[in-house]
Parts: sequence; structure tokens; C-alpha cells
Amino acid sequence: MRYDIAIIGTGPAGYEAAITAKVRNKNIILFGNDAISQKVAKAHTIKNYLGLKNVSGEEMNKAFQDHLKDLDIEITKEKINAVYAMGDFFSIQSMNNNMYEATAVIIATGVMPGKLLPGEEELLGQGVSYCATCDASLYKGKNVAVIGYSSKEEDEARFLSEVCNKVYYYPMYEDKTDLPNSIEVIKQKPIKLASKLRIKTVVTDEGELDVDGIFVLRDAVSPGQLVPGLETNGSHIVVDRALKTSIPGCFACGDITGAPYQYIKAAGEGNVAALSAVGYLDKLKRTQN
Amino acid sequence: MRYDIAIIGTGPAGYEAAITAKVRNKNIILFGNDAISQKVAKAHTIKNYLGLKNVSGEEMNKAFQDHLKDLDIEITKEKINAVYAMGDFFSIQSMNNNMYEATAVIIATGVMPGKLLPGEEELLGQGVSYCATCDASLYKGKNVAVIGYSSKEEDEARFLSEVCNKVYYYPMYEDKTDLPNSIEVIKQKPIKLASKLRIKTVVTDEGELDVDGIFVLRDAVSPGQLVPGLETNGSHIVVDRALKTSIPGCFACGDITGAPYQYIKAAGEGNVAALSAVGYLDKLKRTQN
Repeated sequence: MRYDIAIIGTGPAGYEAAITAKVRNKNIILFGNDAISQKVAKAHTIKNYLGLKNVSGEEMNKAFQDHLKDLDIEITKEKINAVYAMGDFFSIQSMNNNMYEATAVIIATGVMPGKLLPGEEELLGQGVSYCATCDASLYKGKNVAVIGYSSKEEDEARFLSEVCNKVYYYPMYEDKTDLPNSIEVIKQKPIKLASKLRIKTVVTDEGELDVDGIFVLRDAVSPGQLVPGLETNGSHIVVDRALKTSIPGCFACGDITGAPYQYIKAAGEGNVAALSAVGYLDKLKRTQN
Repeated sequence: MRYDIAIIGTGPAGYEAAITAKVRNKNIILFGNDAISQKVAKAHTIKNYLGLKNVSGEEMNKAFQDHLKDLDIEITKEKINAVYAMGDFFSIQSMNNNMYEATAVIIATGVMPGKLLPGEEELLGQGVSYCATCDASLYKGKNVAVIGYSSKEEDEARFLSEVCNKVYYYPMYEDKTDLPNSIEVIKQKPIKLASKLRIKTVVTDEGELDVDGIFVLRDAVSPGQLVPGLETNGSHIVVDRALKTSIPGCFACGDITGAPYQYIKAAGEGNVAALSAVGYLDKLKRTQN
């Protein structure tokens, strides 16, 4: 089936976009994970979300969840790996390799914490991957490096070790690793990714490692990687006042469009993005008839 | 005294701007009247203001008022007639001819209902006025026409009749007028304002009337008249994504920046406008030190 609008992200921007699109009777799918809701719930007192005076993050999150429930909006708990513009619809690929289709898409994934590694963006899709499930088969019998930003990425490294010849694992976190002996854990800090013909290189503060492919595994995906071809400005998506991006039918809202990183700003943009998407759908329908 | 930020307008945009500026410890003044709050209170069920599920306009207005009270924000009940950019501050003139000063100003007056009369904008300040209190003295002993959009403008017409030779009154509403005999009520619909040298003409669907000056009295003032020199687009103020207008230190938010006319969009913009104003104040302080 093809949804009218796919909304990616479950912070205030994604929630408000979903609510507004639903009120406008659109057939929506809302992708998210608990991480962003948890980020809201863990916030200290919020004093400037008009209408919710002096709330804790937990209270605000509850008000948001109640609002979703009131409108029967469910969250599809899939991490989205890529959104491909196919002309008059978008093909949406999840980390579990499920595919979804939607006529319009709203990116509300929040801003990626931390910066990309130097060289990372240039090598994306050319030896650097963000998704083990999607790309493991490309490195069958080969050597790969995995740069993992949280311990849950160790599952991905284990999966890769079943397919690849050799897996090197760079933990980017303090916790102890729990990996089989076949995976070589390297406790050095990657500072750059490089490439020479088919050889990809992880450059660390202590040395270099040559491999066939590099997996960079973080909670969030950079916007340019999420939607290939999208105009970005650093870690932000370029939008106009109607929250349109450089790709027709693709809208963005919330922290990913730039500062200030504020709940009510994000919610306001979610509303505008949803109404712009509704307008896009209406126009498309008129053109097709 | 000079305020850090003057906020003009008491809809969701003005409220949120006031709340955010107050949380950022700025010395603010919030101008408004009951009309906009009443507009909110009279709204039907609002389903898409994230966090306030399925509220009536009255409930939403109460939540907003509670939030203001919680932060000790008071509303100064003055109708603002004009905002003059004076360089490093703004001079703000009320309809009662009181003057206020602020370093930055946020326009959140909502969108003016209805259109300007043809010729009105061209003649502003050249025979057409929006403020009886401010400009009556210019027409001492002369003949003026008053186009009144609600019965409360009859007070202004009465005041003018004390100063001018002759007052003609065009009621733009259904209610009966209650005016002294010295004021001539003309029950025709003005469709155009014109000018030939010093003679100003009210053109109606039934005829013409030549006078020395014309007062057009509405609840709202057009943005270009409110802030002389401001870049506008029809009845909207032109802003960028940071809600900056064409005048440094002057910001705008809510319906007056354009569609969609939505509560949460207005509130989100109020937040961004306030933070942009705070950034402007900080920068100004650094420059002056």
C-alpha cells in the first residue's frame, strides 16, 4: 500500500505533523523509536511551551502521547535508513530492510548529535555504509571496520562477522565491549576516513587500518544520507518558510531544519510541514485528474 | 524607561514571544487588547495544538492565560498606532498618544480582517489617518469623513466633531448608530478613496463626498502603517526563517507573517522571534561595550 504522508521522527515536530495530517484526513505512517520520546521525557522543567506551564519533560511527553492516542495515531517502530525520491512517490527503506511507500514525506528526525568524521560524507555509498543489514552482502568474505557509537551496535558487528572474512570493531563509548574473539576490538579513536582506489582506511590517533568497507553505526543518520540528493547545510536540511526541501514532496521540520532547538518551534514547524504536504497532495491529485 | 523588548499583540504568537523573552530574563512589555483573546476563546474545538488535545477555544485561552500568570506577565491594554525605528531603539505610539521605548520590537498583531480600500494605502499620511486622537488637530475647523468598522469608533467620531467643522460618518457595520445630530451619518458603502490636490474624496456605491481628511478606523492597523518603512507583501510582513523583518531589531511572528493561520504555527514563531530578539540585544550590547 502507498501512504499519503510518511513522517519520520517522533519528537514534537513529527508528532505535530502527524496530528495535523491526521486531522486533515490523510492516510499517514509515523516512524519512530523510543529514543526521541525518551529525550523529551528526560528534559528538565520546560517553561516556554505555551499552554503547558512549567511542565517536566515527563509531563510534556505524557501530554504528547495522550494527544496521539486521542487521534488513534500509532508509531511504527522502525529505524529508517534511506528515503528515495522515485518521481511521484517516495520509497522508504528501514534498517530491517522493510520497504514502505508514501506520496509525500516529512523528515523530523532531530539533529544528529556530534559531527561526521572527516571523509565520511565523501565516502558514503563508496565504501562507507550506515546499515549492516542492508549492505553486509557487499562485503562477503572481505574485511570491514565497524565504528560503533553505542553498545547496541555490537549486534550489527556480530552479524557482519557471520558474513565477512574479518571484522574490526572501534567502540566509540566507555562501556566494556562484549564480542566474540573472531571480532578484533581496536581501542583507538578514529579521526578520519580515507580511500585509495578500492582500499578504505580508518585513520586513528595511533595509526591506520586498511579494509574493504567501513560501517559507521550511530543512532541517527545524517540528512544527506537519509535522503540522497537533498540539499543540506552542515547537519541541517535547507528549507523555505513553507518547510519545503529541495526535493518536491519532501518536507522537513524541527531541529533538523536548524536552531533554535525548542519544543514549540519544532511543533509549529510540524504543523506547517504537514499543511504544505497536504497542499502538495491536493495539487498532485488535481494534476493527475 | 526603555524596555528590552516590546511585544505587540496578544494572540498565541505574542504570548509565546512574551513567555520566551521573560524566561530569558528580558525586561518586556506586552501590548494587547481583549479582542484577540476573545477571538481565541470563541474558536471551535482545536484538535491540532500538540499537548492540548481536543480543547475548546475557551480552554485553550485559559491555558494561555494561566501560563502568563505563572510567569507574572501582564498585558498593557493599549492599542498601538505606530512603531518608529529610531536607530538603536524603537519609539512606540499608542492610540491614546502615550509613548513607549524599547530596544527591540516584536509585531504579533495577527492578520487584518478584510482588505484595505482601494486608494487607502497610497493616501496614508496624506489625508488619510488611522488615529483620531493623534491627527484630529490637523483638521481643526475643517471637514472630515470617518469610516468606522465597529460601533466603538463612534467615540472617535464624537471627539472629532468637537474639533472639526463637519464630520461625516460611514458606518461599516449593521448595528444602529448612536451619534449627535451634528454628525452626518451616510449609509453608503465606501468603495474607493481618491485625492485631487488638497481635496480628498470618499467614493461610494452611490456617489462621492469631498472632504479635507478621511479617518479609517478599524480594530487592526495594516503592518506598513504600523511600522513605517517595513517591507510588506500585501497584508503580511516579509520575514526570514529567523523571523527578522527588513528593519534591524524588528521581528514579526504569527498570522501577520503569512499562512497557515494556525495557533501552534503562531506560537512556534513567537518563540523563534523572541530568541532572535534576544540575540539582537546581546549583539547590540557587545557592540556598545
